[in-house]
Amino acid sequence: MQALGKHLLVELHGCDPEALKSIDLIRETMVSAAKVANATIVGVSFHEFSPFGVSGVVVIAESHLSIHTWPEYRYAAVDIFTCGDLLRPEVAADYIALKLKCKNMSVVEVRRGLIGKNVRGFSHKAGSSEEKAADAYKELSLAY
Amino acid sequence: MQALGKHLLVELHGCDPEALKSIDLIRETMVSAAKVANATIVGVSFHEFSPFGVSGVVVIAESHLSIHTWPEYRYAAVDIFTCGDLLRPEVAADYIALKLKCKNMSVVEVRRGLIGKNVRGFSHKAGSSEEKAADAYKELSLAY
Repeated sequence: MQALGKHLLVELHGCDPEALKSIDLIRETMVSAAKVANATIVGVSFHEFSPFGVSGVVVIAESHLSIHTWPEYRYAAVDIFTCGDLLRPEVAADYIALKLKCKNMSVVEVRRGLIGKNVRGFSHKAGSSEEKAADAYKELSLAY
Repeated sequence: MQALGKHLLVELHGCDPEALKSIDLIRETMVSAAKVANATIVGVSFHEFSPFGVSGVVVIAESHLSIHTWPEYRYAAVDIFTCGDLLRPEVAADYIALKLKCKNMSVVEVRRGLIGKNVRGFSHKAGSSEEKAADAYKELSLAY
């Protein structure tokens, strides 16, 4: 089976609570993480909560990076969802952990969108060829 | 162990490809899904890709909902990440599947941010009490 997307569920325990409280630091970290992963940023949305905690998402041409922080528990939940072979999501995960001074990181990789090997594939979004994509679409439309 | 977040990984196969191609329909569906889940929307970011495919995120006070569509495979990857007891993420998942005319949905629930039962908890973000949160933060800061 081939997977259309690669999704890292990143659990960051034992982080610096001051870092987790700072929307500026969190935004900057996530945007930089997208860049070190070789992603193309298409949208950014970050929000700070009362009394503390930050939620934010970087939408990339190859899917998204998200973060939710609980400074009171020194915990952050990070998701890095990518597609295509050109990205380095693991590097982004390490980068975020470093910036948040995380002492205990765990990562689960989930393969999303499993499809049969015989289904004609192409690199979606990142580095996709429009013609190949359109062809695959027509072909699959006929198959259903 | 208690979990700070509840994360549904929703795999939607066999969707209507025309629905998956429409950024307006996808945005409207995700925003409405957040509402039917009882979430408070704080940010929305959606993007359309060439030749087709939509990525988008609804940032909510209780975390986020995201979607990435592959019309050529009739597939969409949806994530519904929530915290607090007041939300109904499963209802949101069903709603999205219905709107995309999904024929084959599977859902994996991941409990995010597991912490010891004895750690003093409070409802984060959604319906949180600032005083309780500040107290818990002080208490935990002392414990580290």
